[in-house]
Amino acid sequence: MLVLITYDVNTETAEGKTRLRKVAKQCVNYGRRVQNSVFECILDNAQCVMLKAILTDLIDKDVDSLRFYYLGNRYQTKIEHVGVDRGIPADQTLIL
Amino acid sequence: MLVLITYDVNTETAEGKTRLRKVAKQCVNYGRRVQNSVFECILDNAQCVMLKAILTDLIDKDVDSLRFYYLGNRYQTKIEHVGVDRGIPADQTLIL
Repeated sequence: MLVLITYDVNTETAEGKTRLRKVAKQCVNYGRRVQNSVFECILDNAQCVMLKAILTDLIDKDVDSLRFYYLGNRYQTKIEHVGVDRGIPADQTLIL
Repeated sequence: MLVLITYDVNTETAEGKTRLRKVAKQCVNYGRRVQNSVFECILDNAQCVMLKAILTDLIDKDVDSLRFYYLGNRYQTKIEHVGVDRGIPADQTLIL
């Protein structure tokens, strides 16, 4: 299923930037970074539980927030994009 | 239906901050700002077309991006939150 993860952090601070980098590093193992703080991850239930626990540990819960949106398996028709594109589809292999 | 709108903009510049402010101003008419650049809006089809056109005009398409995620009417079970909370539910009236 596609899980959209959005992360709210103040990236004007060095600590915020570091936390965002760590969150991104975990998320891109499962999908792609479509915007600066928005990640689209393809996860099964077990992966979802694990990733949620890892991310929850990484953030500062007093000032940051994470939101998880469950878009299911038929998500292609549920997403629209306008403007500059920075990613590749979450279920597409990147060949370097 | 719930439409999740995510906006990618470099808020380290004054112009970026201004564009984000304008986008937020439009979105909060229809819902709430759940994170700095993430808005949950309750829209019918006509409102959705209109808001999309307004936001597309506001952003700088060479450097910013907007993503629209259509979560339908039964969205309550599709969303999870971790950390600090900054908003009120999109379908809840704010009494001042």
